[in-house]
Amino acid sequence: MSLAAVLIDIDGVLHVGAAPVSGAAAALQRLRDAGLRLAFLTNTTRRTRQALIESLDGMGFDIPPDEIQTAALAARAVVERRGLRPHLLIHPDLAPDWEGVRTDDANAVVIGDAGEGFTYAALNEAFRVLIRDDAVPLIAMGANRYFRATDGLSLDMGPFVAALEFAGRRQAEYTGKPAAAFFETAMAALDVPAANAVMIGDDLENDVVAAQDAGLHGILVRTGKYRPQDEQDPKLQPQTVADNFVEAVRGLLESI
Amino acid sequence: MSLAAVLIDIDGVLHVGAAPVSGAAAALQRLRDAGLRLAFLTNTTRRTRQALIESLDGMGFDIPPDEIQTAALAARAVVERRGLRPHLLIHPDLAPDWEGVRTDDANAVVIGDAGEGFTYAALNEAFRVLIRDDAVPLIAMGANRYFRATDGLSLDMGPFVAALEFAGRRQAEYTGKPAAAFFETAMAALDVPAANAVMIGDDLENDVVAAQDAGLHGILVRTGKYRPQDEQDPKLQPQTVADNFVEAVRGLLESI
Repeated sequence: MSLAAVLIDIDGVLHVGAAPVSGAAAALQRLRDAGLRLAFLTNTTRRTRQALIESLDGMGFDIPPDEIQTAALAARAVVERRGLRPHLLIHPDLAPDWEGVRTDDANAVVIGDAGEGFTYAALNEAFRVLIRDDAVPLIAMGANRYFRATDGLSLDMGPFVAALEFAGRRQAEYTGKPAAAFFETAMAALDVPAANAVMIGDDLENDVVAAQDAGLHGILVRTGKYRPQDEQDPKLQPQTVADNFVEAVRGLLESI
Repeated sequence: MSLAAVLIDIDGVLHVGAAPVSGAAAALQRLRDAGLRLAFLTNTTRRTRQALIESLDGMGFDIPPDEIQTAALAARAVVERRGLRPHLLIHPDLAPDWEGVRTDDANAVVIGDAGEGFTYAALNEAFRVLIRDDAVPLIAMGANRYFRATDGLSLDMGPFVAALEFAGRRQAEYTGKPAAAFFETAMAALDVPAANAVMIGDDLENDVVAAQDAGLHGILVRTGKYRPQDEQDPKLQPQTVADNFVEAVRGLLESI
């Protein structure tokens, strides 16, 4: 493969919780020095892109905004393109990303990782929008099952999307990973074909297998939400496994 | 068909909210007078059987306890038969039905309609029990999507079961409707073959189609959670539709 671009998940790859993965910033710089194009694809939807950039900066990662593609902004793009008025089931910290969007008289439901905001009342409100009409789309930023919080693995938005899919008897449309469109948007922005790109992530299904399905090479790292069982699923096989981001970069740079 | 037994859902059939369906108590008596065996099958899991009986009595229905089969008690029977120690995700009012059951060091998750108790924290706790081991069973009292509350259709336990199925990557085992075993237990107690019984309910999937799948004749009533769309689903067809319980009984008594 002629490697031209590296797509990188952020949470669980560059950092775990509030701590950067040791050596990750230097490894990123080695990728840049090798002339590779970079893009950061995140389904983190508990904060805005701006807040994400500030948090990364605080951990020693200097990443230009236009290299970061978030599932939340992809959802906003979908809503604007189709002229939808969404009922938003999102984290309060994400609200600034949705300023200026009409949310009255909702004809769509948009769901992100609302965290503690996933109450019975909030889910019920979204359900009642869905049952107004079978044509109301359920737009989900991601399908992630769980993430690694400081006190253990914790539910991400995926299970709540599944709940609304079941209640509303419809399939969600995804705007972030694992949607092929999310990877395709990144490849188009970089002007690199999928076959010349890799994706590095800690989420077997949504980062790695989804990227492989979109034609990229997938690398699973053994950090973040990774569990040893992830390497034993006969149906979901990563093409490459690395102990962490630094090792993944070492392997990539040796291969070119 | 030689009719011998009538199985009846309670909420949405005998009463809607706190109000009995007009004429329902007299219609029940006509079924008894005709020599038909009766059983009441409910997935209501927000209160104990005793509380249910008292509530029905207050609405003018005099139903002996042994005619009432609840999904919650069926769950307890499963747990005891298999010697499981359940993590209980249930409504606090249902707790008396679970007295004496060991819940420490959980090796199973049991989920009922917890209502407002379906918080992020409670679902996360159940999820963490599931991911301890792929063999931990997820035992669900029902798969009901929604019920009719006083302020509109509201989420029942089904969507939250779907959330935990997705998060824990396993299928739930149902103890109430739509499980065939729930209907079979009722038929065995009445000593009547399924082919000689009907089920009257307001839930197209969990009462009517599930009963039909178990070999009974299904009657959908247009009360409770019924919606006109229920008669338009090409994949889920009730064998009979009646305006309400009284009309369903009239039809049955005319047919024998």
